[in-house]
Amino acid sequence: MSFDLDRYLADRRRAVDEALERYLPAKDAPPATVHEAMRYSVFAGGKRLRPILVIAGAEAVGGTMERVLPTACAFELIHTYSLIHDDLPAMDDDDYRRGRLTNHKVFGEAIAILAGDALLTLAFALLAEHASLEVMKEVSRAAGTFGMIGGQVADIQSEGKSVDAETLEYIHRHKTAALIRCALRSGALLAGAAPSALRAISEAGSHLGLAFQIVDDILDVEGSLEALGKTAGSDRRKKKVTYPDHFGLEASRLKAKSLIEDAKAALAPLGPRAEPIWALADFIFQRKS
Amino acid sequence: MSFDLDRYLADRRRAVDEALERYLPAKDAPPATVHEAMRYSVFAGGKRLRPILVIAGAEAVGGTMERVLPTACAFELIHTYSLIHDDLPAMDDDDYRRGRLTNHKVFGEAIAILAGDALLTLAFALLAEHASLEVMKEVSRAAGTFGMIGGQVADIQSEGKSVDAETLEYIHRHKTAALIRCALRSGALLAGAAPSALRAISEAGSHLGLAFQIVDDILDVEGSLEALGKTAGSDRRKKKVTYPDHFGLEASRLKAKSLIEDAKAALAPLGPRAEPIWALADFIFQRKS
Repeated sequence: MSFDLDRYLADRRRAVDEALERYLPAKDAPPATVHEAMRYSVFAGGKRLRPILVIAGAEAVGGTMERVLPTACAFELIHTYSLIHDDLPAMDDDDYRRGRLTNHKVFGEAIAILAGDALLTLAFALLAEHASLEVMKEVSRAAGTFGMIGGQVADIQSEGKSVDAETLEYIHRHKTAALIRCALRSGALLAGAAPSALRAISEAGSHLGLAFQIVDDILDVEGSLEALGKTAGSDRRKKKVTYPDHFGLEASRLKAKSLIEDAKAALAPLGPRAEPIWALADFIFQRKS
Repeated sequence: MSFDLDRYLADRRRAVDEALERYLPAKDAPPATVHEAMRYSVFAGGKRLRPILVIAGAEAVGGTMERVLPTACAFELIHTYSLIHDDLPAMDDDDYRRGRLTNHKVFGEAIAILAGDALLTLAFALLAEHASLEVMKEVSRAAGTFGMIGGQVADIQSEGKSVDAETLEYIHRHKTAALIRCALRSGALLAGAAPSALRAISEAGSHLGLAFQIVDDILDVEGSLEALGKTAGSDRRKKKVTYPDHFGLEASRLKAKSLIEDAKAALAPLGPRAEPIWALADFIFQRKS
């Protein structure tokens, strides 16, 4: 019987959504505006890819979803905070995200900045309550200037410039891949992964993270507003550096495909328990939004 | 022999500055701009009050400065991130802070937002490496929407409005006092404070935190740009709700004085080891900037 990815994703998305519902302050808890703003962006129909990677990372080494759900939610909060701040007028100046108005278009810039700050802070509160110091160390590094923020800074500074392949890879590895790799690793760490399993998962995470961002670049060129929920072609309009611009669409597709295969190969030693990560790898490559 | 506060403060400021120098990424470490921006605001001549409260909280229960220095630095990073974001055009729109141009005036809004995000993230990295899950829980709560961010939201939403005494106290207790109380508590927790000592320190922290913000409001009315390093009267210009506006200058001074006395009384059971906190209480009341 083949693995039912749609059902796997739907089950875990539901569990993640229910947990996020519990962990986020009620929207009428004072100060209500910021809680409403946090919820607006968290419950905007995200794919929950990062939380599901945390869960799959745990399952791949024999752990359970229950143990890692709060940590899974923390990754979604960090991801959401980064989107809210990235969309601000001073940054990417985006009006739409996931088919809805961006946070600052609804709540104003001040509340959007604070809602982002609050989501990052709440993510660490969840980790402090439910994860471990080891996971917190990894997450704070992957989200900081040697990870996600570093990639974002390099991305902003490269806008409108011609950059070499090395800089492009630096941006993609940091802006997106660092947190995706960390999600898989955190699940595995909390589930008590043996060193060899952790190495395999880390390697798969690096490949998947980079593949994810390349596919994102491809979708930005190809996708429609309807499918993406954001304005397609926005990378080019903002003169962002992208894989397709640098290597062409076809080479970008081949690169993503080869990274997906590398990720699967890295997971081979884990056997059938890694099947969800295999399936997620295919999902990352085939997604249309 | 009476306690030499000036020497105590100078010694600890130097230790905190040296530790911050070690913990902040080098300003030429890539991506250099954000590291330079982080350092610009961290090394802008702050009083290091929060870090010194962490140290004094540890010393008051027999702990050492060395043990809590990284945690002390984490509080300064959180404080600095909050100032950078508060100064943004979408928030308080301030051009000067501590006598120098604010972060976004020097590095632009995008980098200022990211530098703030990065300081908050680095604070949690330091705590994960050197503190405890218990302290991280308390810090993430004190810095979040039920603490500092909550106060900031209420503050913004009250601008230009007439608010009651209860709202004014909510803002002050959350915007400033929560983190100051948490600084004292975190030092004491890491030093293994007994429950009764922790209670005494928490009570003192609540009083000191509120006193600090009332004195801040008073200084904003009375101070000069030279002494404050920011534009005096800016609260009134921005129609911020303040103690002096609500109760008058003299009543505000009496309230601050009485809170300082309450803090000292709460510390009595700790004996002479709490002398640095006593002295800091006087410092908070008497400071001119």
